[in-house]
Amino acid sequence: MLRSHTCGELRISDIGKSVKLCGWVQKSRDLGALTFVDLRDRYGITQLFFNQEDNPELCEKARKLGREFVVAAIGKVRERSSKNANRATGDIEIEVTELSILNESKVPPFTIDDDTDGGDELRMKYRYLDIRRMPVMNNLIFRSKLAIETRKFLSSLNFVEVETPVLIKSTPEGARDFVVPSRMNAGQFYALPQSPQTFKQLLMVSGLDRYFQIVKCFRDEDLRADRQPEFTQIDCEMSFITQEDILQTFEALTKYLFKTLKGIDLPTFPRMTYDEAMLKYGSDKPDLRFSMEFVELNDLVKGKGFSVFDEAKLIVGINAEGQAAKYSNKDLKDLTEWMKRPQIGAKGLVYVKYEEDGSIKSTVGKFYSDEDIKIWLERFSAKPGDILFILSGETDATRKQLSELRLEMGNRMGLRQPHDFKPLWVMDFPLLEWDEDTQRFYAMHHPFTSPKKEDINRMLDGDHETMKALRADAYDLVLNGVEIGGGSIRIHDRTLQEKNFKLLGFTEEEAEAQFGFLMGAFEFGAPPHGGIAFGFDRLCAVMNGQNTIRDFIAFPKNNQGRDVMIDAPSPIDKAQLKELYLEIKTE
Amino acid sequence: MLRSHTCGELRISDIGKSVKLCGWVQKSRDLGALTFVDLRDRYGITQLFFNQEDNPELCEKARKLGREFVVAAIGKVRERSSKNANRATGDIEIEVTELSILNESKVPPFTIDDDTDGGDELRMKYRYLDIRRMPVMNNLIFRSKLAIETRKFLSSLNFVEVETPVLIKSTPEGARDFVVPSRMNAGQFYALPQSPQTFKQLLMVSGLDRYFQIVKCFRDEDLRADRQPEFTQIDCEMSFITQEDILQTFEALTKYLFKTLKGIDLPTFPRMTYDEAMLKYGSDKPDLRFSMEFVELNDLVKGKGFSVFDEAKLIVGINAEGQAAKYSNKDLKDLTEWMKRPQIGAKGLVYVKYEEDGSIKSTVGKFYSDEDIKIWLERFSAKPGDILFILSGETDATRKQLSELRLEMGNRMGLRQPHDFKPLWVMDFPLLEWDEDTQRFYAMHHPFTSPKKEDINRMLDGDHETMKALRADAYDLVLNGVEIGGGSIRIHDRTLQEKNFKLLGFTEEEAEAQFGFLMGAFEFGAPPHGGIAFGFDRLCAVMNGQNTIRDFIAFPKNNQGRDVMIDAPSPIDKAQLKELYLEIKTE
Repeated sequence: MLRSHTCGELRISDIGKSVKLCGWVQKSRDLGALTFVDLRDRYGITQLFFNQEDNPELCEKARKLGREFVVAAIGKVRERSSKNANRATGDIEIEVTELSILNESKVPPFTIDDDTDGGDELRMKYRYLDIRRMPVMNNLIFRSKLAIETRKFLSSLNFVEVETPVLIKSTPEGARDFVVPSRMNAGQFYALPQSPQTFKQLLMVSGLDRYFQIVKCFRDEDLRADRQPEFTQIDCEMSFITQEDILQTFEALTKYLFKTLKGIDLPTFPRMTYDEAMLKYGSDKPDLRFSMEFVELNDLVKGKGFSVFDEAKLIVGINAEGQAAKYSNKDLKDLTEWMKRPQIGAKGLVYVKYEEDGSIKSTVGKFYSDEDIKIWLERFSAKPGDILFILSGETDATRKQLSELRLEMGNRMGLRQPHDFKPLWVMDFPLLEWDEDTQRFYAMHHPFTSPKKEDINRMLDGDHETMKALRADAYDLVLNGVEIGGGSIRIHDRTLQEKNFKLLGFTEEEAEAQFGFLMGAFEFGAPPHGGIAFGFDRLCAVMNGQNTIRDFIAFPKNNQGRDVMIDAPSPIDKAQLKELYLEIKTE
Repeated sequence: MLRSHTCGELRISDIGKSVKLCGWVQKSRDLGALTFVDLRDRYGITQLFFNQEDNPELCEKARKLGREFVVAAIGKVRERSSKNANRATGDIEIEVTELSILNESKVPPFTIDDDTDGGDELRMKYRYLDIRRMPVMNNLIFRSKLAIETRKFLSSLNFVEVETPVLIKSTPEGARDFVVPSRMNAGQFYALPQSPQTFKQLLMVSGLDRYFQIVKCFRDEDLRADRQPEFTQIDCEMSFITQEDILQTFEALTKYLFKTLKGIDLPTFPRMTYDEAMLKYGSDKPDLRFSMEFVELNDLVKGKGFSVFDEAKLIVGINAEGQAAKYSNKDLKDLTEWMKRPQIGAKGLVYVKYEEDGSIKSTVGKFYSDEDIKIWLERFSAKPGDILFILSGETDATRKQLSELRLEMGNRMGLRQPHDFKPLWVMDFPLLEWDEDTQRFYAMHHPFTSPKKEDINRMLDGDHETMKALRADAYDLVLNGVEIGGGSIRIHDRTLQEKNFKLLGFTEEEAEAQFGFLMGAFEFGAPPHGGIAFGFDRLCAVMNGQNTIRDFIAFPKNNQGRDVMIDAPSPIDKAQLKELYLEIKTE
């Protein structure tokens, strides 16, 4: 080793030891007679000490060190005269007797410092320098630990980690696949997996019993702020279980991870049906760090001449407690504009201010008397000082808009503390989801999800409302308003799987061509099984009270799917294209 | 859970317990009054017992169970009258009171049995049934354990597992990349990594210090018997180390894995230079389970009128001890033909039989007297009963041919025992490898490998022989004739890296376009670093004394790169091609 110790481990008890340290020059201070250099590595910072009088040549060398130079220093540990209590090594310093420069450094494009960075573009281009910053480095180390503890926990329960293939078969169902042209099979393509779903089910058919894998998955989607074309899942599957077994097993995993990595004891996770979540929070992933539940007013507001409410399918609001005084007319106008932005798309925002003095101020005073509104206030359990925000319109859209407002108010009121953790199981998801664009149903979870037993007989009724009402044995694990996991009990019977494909508009031929191998496997003794997948990148971020998964990925891509550091994707040779039987056609 | 116990855990101490088991019907025996069913799961086999007299209906149901039916059985554990000592659960059986069929099964295309399989094609098509066979299942479980222990060991040494990207940049250097067309960047492609080489070096530049990853890698090569287009590496890198540190760290890892998973204490690994390995064994991955070292005869055989030897660059042989009597003229003719096959390409095979009675029989008796040959025999330390095999020709080709013969003789003589383990470090590899086809040098390891310090100054001499003589700080870990790991100390200096690219025939522009990001990173304080990568699939196989990595991969591809189970690769939609700006051109 070029070093005897790291820059993070020497203590007062090491005084007198001869040591050799390696690291990067964090900074150097030239005090004339004395020079101090802070030497940094992954483990910490240790102060190097040089004395002009004792060794002028060495001191001169030390003075010339630039930031981020890589050096090796030999010397003796001694007690510092002025200690630094903020640093684990702050009691000691190294009186250096030999110094070698292992590599020089140009001045980096941004300072390597915990609290500053060079902005997103520079950070991504010089990611290797960004990772030198301890918060980023620690994110990667956290991620590594989270993977280790996940594996430890699941292995202790007899889960076997199996690597499933990356070069698989493209299927038009679901999100868009990345594809890989095959040189050995002209005109044919592999696809990169969006998840190892069918393989893990085949492993259950094989009798593997308990499978998991921490695995890269791929989706060629237009990238929103917090999506990456490649992402990582904790992918799990179990045989001979009920839904309850899955919930308990993975609730235990989540608790174990919080306890081990954060020292936090999570209580038993509450459960809520999808319907209840939509009714109370307008979202299938409600943030339970704060209440602010939806209150519906349909029965109270109709028939008073306010056509907006009269014509609405749903009139629903929230109570922002104690916020009345904080919202001037200008603020309310701004908030209304915020709600009208295309991202949210509300037509307007009705408010009711319940002033501290008991008076009522509202946008709909023309149509509703104070007596009318007092009944609303009662339903909201509003107190003087509160303010109600009310939306109306089509049911689903209105709920979605109000959910956005609820989260915004939660932010403004400081109710979404990053290190407060509120998990929730959302259960009984709809089996199907109607898509207006293509005028057909899609599987809400995926086509292998089992409908609830009691709904199987109603599956092919053909009636739109019946189909929307079908429920699945599907569940999501939600943490602080983020879906960190989702899964289902799977179909393990060929006939039911065929029925489900039919429901989703597959012809028999399409179903056979795309998933014949799986349905074939079901005929050779498939056990009852189910599973779950956690978004690993997101779990990392949420557990650290952060929003951006990119900060937990060593080398992320930008929103155009580019790695700006290595400059990928990039053109390839004509010869290689030819080998792949491909031509580029950009017009 | 649908079960209270697995089929592998009930013992005599469980007698009297009410239990519920789930599993597959391995076989059922109908003895008229009694019916026995062997129920199998991943953990073992438990016997179910049904009594016609006590419960004729249930017994009838049991009789009708087909092989591989999935059932749940409730009953009581009782002692067996005739015990099966070969089975962990052989002392007990379950007196069944309730039986439910969870899924039926068609008759499988081959019997699920340890010792038989349906042949390669059926095994691959019905891989989920093949995995039900315990040897295959156990291979996957072994693989999972090997990964866990690898992670445990490396984590304990502060190695951090970092996931590097799968969608990276294509480079024409080295083996052929799989590429992935980018929809968002018309006409551009990602490549799948052949290894995370540049990323792990960037992580060293970032100060991560100790990195590892168990990671899928990809190579679009024509597949030989034991190659897969996707394979797994244990990829590792360390900073502030010398070559010696790497060897010691990963020798310790290997020893730990053998101790933990196989209970075997490996001794200190011997080391050998590349030159010595080629001289003694004609291979850079010699199988040290047996000796049979090469013996060169150039100085003894020339000038006796045998033009084959006279014209040869190298005359070299091995001694197959005690084998003289086993090789009739017919056998020797067959062996000569075997050596002449195009896979080996020898022009002929000279033998010298040292008969038990001290007489000498040889193919070259015309040219060499017994006295001449006795000197050869001495050099081989041959005893009566031994037989020498001698090849001649160009140095490299002859060594390669003799190496094949040595291995073949090792096999025939039973010297390559699968559970005898002989590790070896091969060191000081050449920096460059000359390619006749393209008339240029390639990096023997990869272009980031550091030349030995003493060779740096000779790097750009331009002389062919000098370049061939350059040595690198590169090393392979060889186990039983298989290269299970390889690595090198890397270049960490921009100037040296540029020099190396120049040596490899890169123009400055090419080097910059392909690896500019890495050379740029070297300018911001790159530490001295080096690493190693283990072939994980191969390590699994070798540790189990097996040759075929496919048996340790859950869903392997065949030699045409196809997954015959899911039928991939396959054609994709025209619409998707268009989105990717591609057209197929097969003529």
